[in-house]
Amino acid sequence: MQKIVSSVTAARGFKALGINCGIKKRNKDLGLIFSEYPAICAAFFTTNALTSSHIQLDKIHLKKSPHIKAIVVNSANANCCTGKMGFYDSLSMAKETAKVLKIKPEEVIVASTGIIGQRLPIEKIKKAILKFPLFLHKRGAGDFAHSILTTDTRTKEIAISLKIAGKTVKIGGVAKGVGMVNPLMATTLMFITTDAAINRVALKKAGKLAIAKSLNMITVDGDMSPNDSLFIIANSLAQNKIIKPQGAEFKKFSDALSYVCNQLAKLLIKDGEGATKFVVIKVKGAAFQKQARKIASTIANSLLFKTMIYGGDPNWGRIVSSAGSADKNLNIKKLDIYVGHKKIFSGGKPTKTDKRILRKMFLKREIEIILDLKSGRQQAVKYTCDLSPEYVRINSKYRI
Amino acid sequence: MQKIVSSVTAARGFKALGINCGIKKRNKDLGLIFSEYPAICAAFFTTNALTSSHIQLDKIHLKKSPHIKAIVVNSANANCCTGKMGFYDSLSMAKETAKVLKIKPEEVIVASTGIIGQRLPIEKIKKAILKFPLFLHKRGAGDFAHSILTTDTRTKEIAISLKIAGKTVKIGGVAKGVGMVNPLMATTLMFITTDAAINRVALKKAGKLAIAKSLNMITVDGDMSPNDSLFIIANSLAQNKIIKPQGAEFKKFSDALSYVCNQLAKLLIKDGEGATKFVVIKVKGAAFQKQARKIASTIANSLLFKTMIYGGDPNWGRIVSSAGSADKNLNIKKLDIYVGHKKIFSGGKPTKTDKRILRKMFLKREIEIILDLKSGRQQAVKYTCDLSPEYVRINSKYRI
Repeated sequence: MQKIVSSVTAARGFKALGINCGIKKRNKDLGLIFSEYPAICAAFFTTNALTSSHIQLDKIHLKKSPHIKAIVVNSANANCCTGKMGFYDSLSMAKETAKVLKIKPEEVIVASTGIIGQRLPIEKIKKAILKFPLFLHKRGAGDFAHSILTTDTRTKEIAISLKIAGKTVKIGGVAKGVGMVNPLMATTLMFITTDAAINRVALKKAGKLAIAKSLNMITVDGDMSPNDSLFIIANSLAQNKIIKPQGAEFKKFSDALSYVCNQLAKLLIKDGEGATKFVVIKVKGAAFQKQARKIASTIANSLLFKTMIYGGDPNWGRIVSSAGSADKNLNIKKLDIYVGHKKIFSGGKPTKTDKRILRKMFLKREIEIILDLKSGRQQAVKYTCDLSPEYVRINSKYRI
Repeated sequence: MQKIVSSVTAARGFKALGINCGIKKRNKDLGLIFSEYPAICAAFFTTNALTSSHIQLDKIHLKKSPHIKAIVVNSANANCCTGKMGFYDSLSMAKETAKVLKIKPEEVIVASTGIIGQRLPIEKIKKAILKFPLFLHKRGAGDFAHSILTTDTRTKEIAISLKIAGKTVKIGGVAKGVGMVNPLMATTLMFITTDAAINRVALKKAGKLAIAKSLNMITVDGDMSPNDSLFIIANSLAQNKIIKPQGAEFKKFSDALSYVCNQLAKLLIKDGEGATKFVVIKVKGAAFQKQARKIASTIANSLLFKTMIYGGDPNWGRIVSSAGSADKNLNIKKLDIYVGHKKIFSGGKPTKTDKRILRKMFLKREIEIILDLKSGRQQAVKYTCDLSPEYVRINSKYRI
């Protein structure tokens, strides 16, 4: 497995583009991924009861058509809480895209991200779609990566290649964050393309495993978006022997996909709104998976923890308190806490750690915190970022 | 029922004091409430698995003695995660206080609030306790209110008097906040004194009802403290017929106690760390209490909601999204949202509200938001505040 360039167009048969259609003033806000060959698609959506129009339409298209050929995405407008007309706008985007690409509307997936509750400027979008054939290009991945950004400060892209049964298979991915990030199943917009030949059940299974090792591990602010979507599309042009949902070849593909999603998830957290630090929280020695996950997630979302990380304040009591609030039966006396592999808490009280060393550990840009409950063999890992005044600034005037 | 002055010393037989013992540089950091007559005590503690030494000691004292006479409190140090020695420090505080007041150690309740993980300067505290008889005074409630503050910008006090079976009964209360506020059972430190004659079961029952209508309704940051405690002490000096856990007199007392706790809870939120706005979130028309509570609490703790309130940004989509994330079966199409009694969302989309009016509503210092699920008769109310850069500033360098 090795890293290669160009993300979503790295695999054979994929082209992409990103242009401005006028939702944003100047920056790219409309993107397309196109597969020349019919591709199967595994899609994962938010579990929010509020879903954007694009999700409602995609569910219909994915039922109607056994494969897809295009994904069209707009940023800066979520097309959510926009009623029936919002749904028709999504449908128009799909239809217009299908027309210029000479494919069927149900072969088009639509995605939106941005502000909730405003209609899309659909006429502007339709006009821009007419230009798609002009811009679509094998080297268009970078433009696409730009076109899906909202408050992101940089693009998130990765591609890898690996050998499966003697054939070279490529997997490329792109994602956008960076607020309203707290997944259950999926989060943000993430698009993965691969030329692997794989059956539908295997792709879905590999996708689920990848989510568990990536999107379900991260949190920026504990808020869940109504637009969260992950699409994994595979067009089989690598001509490898079809991957089935078990065996060594599945494991190889699944691990590679997990790696791609995990890398993108890390990039999302590192570019979290206002984030200045990247934190890994590992809870091990838990009696149950649920216990480990609850504790890791409570700490990762604690405002007091996140602000202390921002300030580099070694106020470790907040870690203990947060763990205790997550699980009222937690045995604090058994708990060991490590920061940067140094034990700082044991037997219900702090270890004798030099104050300057403690402070230094919390001043690092990447911090790993391990909680060992010493009560079992289960563990969970969360990636999170700090909470800075910049997060407040960004989100206090998102709409005005 | 009418408001009177002087909070915890308003009721007959109570004195108080607040002095500096040297944990803080200059401000008051050690306080005492004293009842001349034995008082019964209803105590409610945090459900955090991590509990401070004072809670461990109080539980023993409350079992040992049927009544109490004194509550001694220090601020700026939580005496939590301090191991066995921390427990002995709490015990020393109780013993020393008992000695100077000529009462039994188990008649003393101890409470601490402040930073986690540092030993108390117990010698300084013991020295200061010797001065208690000098400062103890019927007019000491204000000093006590000051002595329990941490990042609070002002004291929180209230007292009322009411008639119960022809006798005048007084209830006074004082509380401190103002971060790590997200209750389950109780939160912060809150002390209530009353001269009512009431039996133990009735006092506990009235306390539980009061918590439901006050401390369990509020959130500042979703973090739960290991020191949260509410103490209600009643010394029966009003000489009313003993209040039992039912009937009209119980209802009168219970309502008055709920009122006192509710007023203090509001004061806590208004003085939330960095808070500039006070928000009431009411979820009504829910099928189940649990549904209403979950939705109200998810919105009240949403960072995106709290930052938008700070900025006065009418980004109402975040309210809908937050509600949808709290209950994945929520019927968004049935949901009505009112801000300041104006309907702004209905039938899955925004109503036609003038943009300037909408903006004005979100610029107010006190904002009421009502979500009507139109699915039943259950409701829940939460008080919350906004999230400002000041919250981040305070909490990023609490310890350094």
